[in-house]
Amino acid sequence: MAEAAAVENPDQLITSTDPEHPANLIPSLCAKFWTLGWVTGTGGGCSIRDDNLVYLAPSGVQKELMKPTDIYVLSLKDQDPAHRQQRTYLRSPPTYKPSQCTPLFLAAFTRRGAGCCIHTHSHWAVLVTLLLEAKGNSRVFEINNIEQIKGFGKGFGKVGNLGYHDTLRIPVIENTPHEEDLTEYLEAAMEAYPDTYAVLVRRHGVYVWGDNVHKAKTQCESLDYLFQLAVEMHQLGLPWISNVAQIAPQRS
Amino acid sequence: MAEAAAVENPDQLITSTDPEHPANLIPSLCAKFWTLGWVTGTGGGCSIRDDNLVYLAPSGVQKELMKPTDIYVLSLKDQDPAHRQQRTYLRSPPTYKPSQCTPLFLAAFTRRGAGCCIHTHSHWAVLVTLLLEAKGNSRVFEINNIEQIKGFGKGFGKVGNLGYHDTLRIPVIENTPHEEDLTEYLEAAMEAYPDTYAVLVRRHGVYVWGDNVHKAKTQCESLDYLFQLAVEMHQLGLPWISNVAQIAPQRS
Amino acid sequence: MAEAAAVENPDQLITSTDPEHPANLIPSLCAKFWTLGWVTGTGGGCSIRDDNLVYLAPSGVQKELMKPTDIYVLSLKDQDPAHRQQRTYLRSPPTYKPSQCTPLFLAAFTRRGAGCCIHTHSHWAVLVTLLLEAKGNSRVFEINNIEQIKGFGKGFGKVGNLGYHDTLRIPVIENTPHEEDLTEYLEAAMEAYPDTYAVLVRRHGVYVWGDNVHKAKTQCESLDYLFQLAVEMHQLGLPWISNVAQIAPQRS
Amino acid sequence: MAEAAAVENPDQLITSTDPEHPANLIPSLCAKFWTLGWVTGTGGGCSIRDDNLVYLAPSGVQKELMKPTDIYVLSLKDQDPAHRQQRTYLRSPPTYKPSQCTPLFLAAFTRRGAGCCIHTHSHWAVLVTLLLEAKGNSRVFEINNIEQIKGFGKGFGKVGNLGYHDTLRIPVIENTPHEEDLTEYLEAAMEAYPDTYAVLVRRHGVYVWGDNVHKAKTQCESLDYLFQLAVEMHQLGLPWISNVAQIAPQRS
Repeated sequence: MAEAAAVENPDQLITSTDPEHPANLIPSLCAKFWTLGWVTGTGGGCSIRDDNLVYLAPSGVQKELMKPTDIYVLSLKDQDPAHRQQRTYLRSPPTYKPSQCTPLFLAAFTRRGAGCCIHTHSHWAVLVTLLLEAKGNSRVFEINNIEQIKGFGKGFGKVGNLGYHDTLRIPVIENTPHEEDLTEYLEAAMEAYPDTYAVLVRRHGVYVWGDNVHKAKTQCESLDYLFQLAVEMHQLGLPWISNVAQIAPQRS
Repeated sequence: MAEAAAVENPDQLITSTDPEHPANLIPSLCAKFWTLGWVTGTGGGCSIRDDNLVYLAPSGVQKELMKPTDIYVLSLKDQDPAHRQQRTYLRSPPTYKPSQCTPLFLAAFTRRGAGCCIHTHSHWAVLVTLLLEAKGNSRVFEINNIEQIKGFGKGFGKVGNLGYHDTLRIPVIENTPHEEDLTEYLEAAMEAYPDTYAVLVRRHGVYVWGDNVHKAKTQCESLDYLFQLAVEMHQLGLPWISNVAQIAPQRS
Repeated sequence: MAEAAAVENPDQLITSTDPEHPANLIPSLCAKFWTLGWVTGTGGGCSIRDDNLVYLAPSGVQKELMKPTDIYVLSLKDQDPAHRQQRTYLRSPPTYKPSQCTPLFLAAFTRRGAGCCIHTHSHWAVLVTLLLEAKGNSRVFEINNIEQIKGFGKGFGKVGNLGYHDTLRIPVIENTPHEEDLTEYLEAAMEAYPDTYAVLVRRHGVYVWGDNVHKAKTQCESLDYLFQLAVEMHQLGLPWISNVAQIAPQRS
Repeated sequence: MAEAAAVENPDQLITSTDPEHPANLIPSLCAKFWTLGWVTGTGGGCSIRDDNLVYLAPSGVQKELMKPTDIYVLSLKDQDPAHRQQRTYLRSPPTYKPSQCTPLFLAAFTRRGAGCCIHTHSHWAVLVTLLLEAKGNSRVFEINNIEQIKGFGKGFGKVGNLGYHDTLRIPVIENTPHEEDLTEYLEAAMEAYPDTYAVLVRRHGVYVWGDNVHKAKTQCESLDYLFQLAVEMHQLGLPWISNVAQIAPQRS
């Protein structure tokens, strides 16, 4: 589907019988995320990049009720980085506003070559940032020696996944009154933690991305699992960082 | 659909193939709320106003099994405020009684122009009222500096939503043996907190409304999210009110 | 459907296109209870009485996968109370054993005229019995001043439901190695608490009944809600019994 | 279906309209396990043995989206125990890698004659191993006097199930960086605890098996229930092992 043709008939961009087409996949993913408690009360969202085309959920919709016709489409080629507040959309739904998350999703696409970015308001993510705040405004979440850590890639441009004994580090940025204003801090966190696939936002939630939908979603699931485990470990008085690498396995 | 015609054939009022028709929407919403744990064991409910027509779930039904034929309909025009216990229904299901929540739903419709009102028995709502009771019978729930607060409108007749640093305040009223008797206290709370879209009822649950179904539902989801977070924050020793507005975001 | 005819062709007893027929309803209820965590790993179950016919789930099935053809049927008329271990079934599925819960379900039917009895292994029920055990082997669960208490009838043969300020009392019996051996203790608890619609079994779960499926199910939902709330209240240091009846509601 | 024929057309091995066929059952079970939180972010999995044929989910798939065509099949006859890293598959999906869990599943099949083995990353399992670690690296989980314990068989080759007063013992092995390396420790735990149907893996999850799919699944459900209960009991200060056998049941 050529972009030029699409501009003449923008609805072509979001019309497909393929359930894997981004305009179909974003609504079905968001409905799934709603049942997981990741997106609630219009908070949170998801964006998919297909080559230069970016598909975005609108602002303020009920996430479990989204339809393909609600989806925005823009081309990365058309965006002027110097004026990122004024975006050109190839296709806009008639009754909505673009999501305030848009520049954050674009940062994952342009700076990390991501194919999908998910934003959740998961309780576990928020509680982790609150626990870190209570520990002196710590700006990084760290956990190691948990099997689920293997669910993460080693980093942008690197081959393979983290190991069981590796420490997963997710940077935390402070929240801002306007979500778009988070962009520069998110980009700075990407610079400071070049291998991360996620950034936590204090008292707000998390942004998670991946090379494609599969990787973004499974990394987001693994991260939510780890955030939940971290809160539960805290409640049980168990530390997030341990030194079990030297414990030799035993015949029990 | 004219009301005069409806009185001759009341079932017309609840017969539609449109899933967005209130008589179809109330059952599907209640089924969804049942899976969320908001309405259980016949507790809780939902009402929708369409102009002067008010659609109401009956008392005592299993909320996930409700059918359009179970729905009561009344006209706001026909109600005599001086005798609100004696209501005239345009359409009544044959085997049920009207919900005791009816006058509370009507208060949201007549005093705040709401288009939908939801009543939940959510654990999180009840626990928040119990925690406030333990803190000296506090009559208001307050939380700030959580992103999900943005899910609420600024107030009746005001444009826009609350900001991240704004404090969300939800009044708490004491429960009464008969649910209808709550009405005057709910109305008084509306007067005392003119901008609120919700009233907590001690040891009982919460009433949440909005200009339309979309807003009532997303505000109710946001509120349940915040109640849950508040209970979890309490368990972790974290305060509901903080002063993070002055913390400048940082490049991590 | 006459019982005499049924004996000649027992499968008639469990063959119906009506989703409300007990042989269809038990599987659909059990599947719902499985999603609620009430019946897991073949534990728990449900029985329905229609006049003298009793429909029972078999022992050891996966509760979310039950089929009408798995259902046992017996007639209350055929049972010899003096030899209750030797039961006559009008219809038995070919490959299963009768549930060990059978005599407990029958106690609710014969002694309380119940139309449905539900047995859950809900965590909340088990935790409540453990908390009571830690408080000196207490043999009754008591809670008051919670709205959901209104979800219970006043008692066998009484009209109306409990009020908000009433104290709900659920007796607790000790578990026995063989579930059938619980019967005499369950019957004794029914005698000691003639108005109860439920009996807790220490470290095991709960039996809940009602005049019909609707009442048994909504009372079971209300009770599970209250058990969960009670555990959460305990974790937050809040007492189950309070004296708020005298607190006058206020204009907030 | 003869194995010889299958090798000529391997897709025959995973093509069936029977929902109980392993190639259909593994995807539907994994989807169910995903909703239970047992398999998330590609972690966890399930394998079924039908006589000598073993059906395996591939590595790295989204567990709720698995298809029959994703399934690996191998024959137990073809495996050389001395070279278990080099396995011969009768059928391999085109785009995946075999699961690292494969040798662990095979251990259950060859050493215990299991018909199905499930591997979960359940939070409750991981938290139990962490609590045991905090108690001096304990290498066995023990619980007694809980009804759900009856959900387990007495052991390999034994008739009947555990009783209410029996102590369920699940060995714990330390995790290894490479999942395949767990195999020898899992096998050693099987030797040390010949009656167990499950092995916990520290900071990782649990392997649970059974004579057939029914038994593996219901034992896994019962175990997850007990792990959850154990964590909750720990939070409430209640011990996992008690001595209630001598408490005589009472007429309450």
